[in-house]
Amino acid sequence: PKVVTLPGDGIGPEVTAAAVEVLREVAPDVKVEEHAIGGGAYDRDGDPFPQRTRDALGDADAVLLGTVGGPQNSPWNSLPRHLRPESGLLALRKALGCYANLRPVRVQPGLEHLSPLKPELARGVDILIVRELLGGIYFDGDRRIEGGAAYNTMRYTTPEVERVARVAFWAAEQRRGRVTSVDKANVLEVSELWRRDVTALRNREYRNVHLNHEYVDSVAMLIVADPGRYDVIVTENLFGDILSDLAAVIPGSLGLMPSASLGDGPGLFEPIHGSAPDIAGQGIANPAAAIMSAGMLLRHSLHRPEAANQIDRAVALALREHPTRDLGGKADTRTFTHAVLDAMA
Amino acid sequence: PKVVTLPGDGIGPEVTAAAVEVLREVAPDVKVEEHAIGGGAYDRDGDPFPQRTRDALGDADAVLLGTVGGPQNSPWNSLPRHLRPESGLLALRKALGCYANLRPVRVQPGLEHLSPLKPELARGVDILIVRELLGGIYFDGDRRIEGGAAYNTMRYTTPEVERVARVAFWAAEQRRGRVTSVDKANVLEVSELWRRDVTALRNREYRNVHLNHEYVDSVAMLIVADPGRYDVIVTENLFGDILSDLAAVIPGSLGLMPSASLGDGPGLFEPIHGSAPDIAGQGIANPAAAIMSAGMLLRHSLHRPEAANQIDRAVALALREHPTRDLGGKADTRTFTHAVLDAMA
Ligand SMILES: CC(C)[C@H](C(=O)O)[C@@H](O)C(=O)O
Ligand SMILES: CC(C)[C@H](C(=O)O)[C@@H](O)C(=O)O
Repeated sequence: PKVVTLPGDGIGPEVTAAAVEVLREVAPDVKVEEHAIGGGAYDRDGDPFPQRTRDALGDADAVLLGTVGGPQNSPWNSLPRHLRPESGLLALRKALGCYANLRPVRVQPGLEHLSPLKPELARGVDILIVRELLGGIYFDGDRRIEGGAAYNTMRYTTPEVERVARVAFWAAEQRRGRVTSVDKANVLEVSELWRRDVTALRNREYRNVHLNHEYVDSVAMLIVADPGRYDVIVTENLFGDILSDLAAVIPGSLGLMPSASLGDGPGLFEPIHGSAPDIAGQGIANPAAAIMSAGMLLRHSLHRPEAANQIDRAVALALREHPTRDLGGKADTRTFTHAVLDAMA
Repeated sequence: PKVVTLPGDGIGPEVTAAAVEVLREVAPDVKVEEHAIGGGAYDRDGDPFPQRTRDALGDADAVLLGTVGGPQNSPWNSLPRHLRPESGLLALRKALGCYANLRPVRVQPGLEHLSPLKPELARGVDILIVRELLGGIYFDGDRRIEGGAAYNTMRYTTPEVERVARVAFWAAEQRRGRVTSVDKANVLEVSELWRRDVTALRNREYRNVHLNHEYVDSVAMLIVADPGRYDVIVTENLFGDILSDLAAVIPGSLGLMPSASLGDGPGLFEPIHGSAPDIAGQGIANPAAAIMSAGMLLRHSLHRPEAANQIDRAVALALREHPTRDLGGKADTRTFTHAVLDAMA
C-alpha cells in the first residue's frame, strides 16, 4: 500500500515525521511518499496545492497530513483567497472526495485532570463527531464580496446529506447505537432538508440506531454542561467545524486529537491542532495526535485494526509515562515518539 | 414611560410576572402593557406576532419579553415556518430594529461551584457578547427548499457591520477596553467584509480600544479553555447565537443570563433561557434572568442606572440566600422574587 504524507507548515513536519516512524514500525510494507501542501508549497510552487501533489494522490491508499498555515501576521494571509494555505487544505479535501470527517473525542482514563471541565463531567467522555466536509457554506454557490456587501451560500442536497449520515449511523452501530443530528431547523431551510433526510434514512435503513435532533446553539451548551449524553454527533460543515473544535477542548489538549476524513477515494488523516508556528522547529511539539491519526489510517484505510489498536495502547501508555509540555510534562517530540515505539515493542 | 411585556409561552408568563413585580417596585411610574407573542399568540390569533402586539410597540419605550416556543413534539413545530413561535420572535426583533444583542456573561462571586468549568477557570469571568441580530443567514437573501436541495444566504453590508461594531466599541470603552471580533475569514467572503469593516471603524473612531480578530472555531475552544481572556466579543448573527449560548453555560445556569437587544427604536429585554415547557406552570422557574433583564431595561432604555444597580445587587444577594432548584437550592419563583424585593427594601 502507498501512503502520501503532506507534512505542511509549522510543526506539521515534526509531528508527521514522528507518525511516519511509528507507522513504519507497525506496517513496514507501506510505501511512504512525501509531497508539499500549504504555505510552504505556495512559496516553492506558487500554489498551496501543487499539481505534483495532486498527481501523487492518484494511486495512494491514504494521505497523512500534518498542519497548514502560518502565524496571524503571515504574508500568506494577505494572498488572494485561492492561494492561501487553507485553500490548499480545502482543495485537497475536495480532490480526495472526503465528505465525512470523523473526530473521536475521548478522555483518556487517568487524564481527566487535563480537562477544563470538572473531572466528574470529563470522566468517561467518548463522543464521535461526524462532520460533513465537502458541502455547505464552504463550497460552491453564490460567494462574493462586492463593494459594501458580501455573500456566501449554504447549500445541501439530499445525496450529500445521506452519504454523511450513513457514515454516522454505521459508526453508531459499532458504538453505543445513538446518533444526535445537529442543525438550526428553527431558522434555516437547509437544516429543514438536513433533518428530513437524516430522519428518512434512519427510518429506511437504520431502525436499530436511536436518532434525535438538537439545535446547534443548544448542543454548544450541552456538550460542555453534560458531554456524557452524546455518542455520535452528525452535522453539516460549518456547525461541525465549530462543534468539533469545541468538543476537542474536553480532553484538555488539542495535542491528543486525531481525525479521519473518509469518502470514495483514499482517506485523509490529520491531527486537528494547528500549525503552532510559535513552537515550530524546536522539537517540542506533541506528536500524539499525528501518531493517533496514523492509527486511524491503519484502521480505516488499510483495514489493519490490530496495528491500530497497538498504536492506541502505546500512545495511552506513553501519555501517562512521558507527557509532553502541553500536558504539563517535559517529554519532547523525540522522547515521546520513542516511548510509543518502546511501548509497542 | 411605557413598557410592553410579552410573556410568551412555557415559563415565560411566570418569570415575566416576577420581573414586572420588581420593576414596579423600583419604577412605580412605569406603565406596563401586556401583549401576546409566540405559540400562544398563534393559537389565539393565528399569528405568532399578531398585529395588535405590533401596534402596541409604536409608543413603547422598551419591551420585556418572556420566552417563546413549545416542547420538541409540539404541533407548533410542524406549522409552516412563518407561523412558528420562533418566527414571531424574529419578526419582533426586526420590527423593533434591534440589531445589537448584548449578553453579559458574569460568574457571580461565590457561585463558581455552579460552573461546569473548574472553579479556577470560572472565577472572575466577565464577558460581554455583542451579537448582530438582524442580518446574516437569519434573514433575507435566497432561502428555499426545492425538491432535493436547500439554500440559505449569509449576507452582510458595511452599514450593518458598522452599527453593531459601534455598540461593541462603545461597550468596551465602559469596560476593559478590549474587543475580540469573531469571524471565519479564512473561508467566508462575508467574514472578510466583516473583518475589514470592523478594523476600519476601529482605526477611524475607536483608537483607544484594543481590537483583535479570532476564528469562530478557535473562540469556541478558548472560551471554554481560557474564558478569562475575553472582554467584549462581537460577531455576526449565527456565530453569535452559538457562542453566546456556549458562553452562557459558564456561570452554570441559564437561569442567570439576561439579555438586551438594542437598536434605533425601543430596546428588547429577555432572559436567554428557553420556555422550559417541562416545568411550566409549577411556580418553580428561576426568575433571576428575567429580573436582571428588567434591570438591563432600566439601564439601557429608561436610563436609570441607580435602579438597575439596585436590582443587580438584590439579585446577587437573593441568589446566595435563596437559591432556586436549578442552582441546587429549594426556593420557588415566589420565594426568590420576594427575596429580591426584600433585599431592595
Ligand atoms: C483551516 C480551516 C479552513 C479548516 C476548516 O474550517 O475546515 C479548519 O478549521 C479545520 O477544521 O480543519
Ligand atoms: C429561537 C431562535 C430563533 C433564537 C435564535 O437563534 O436567535 C434563539 O436561539 C436565540 O438565541 O434567541
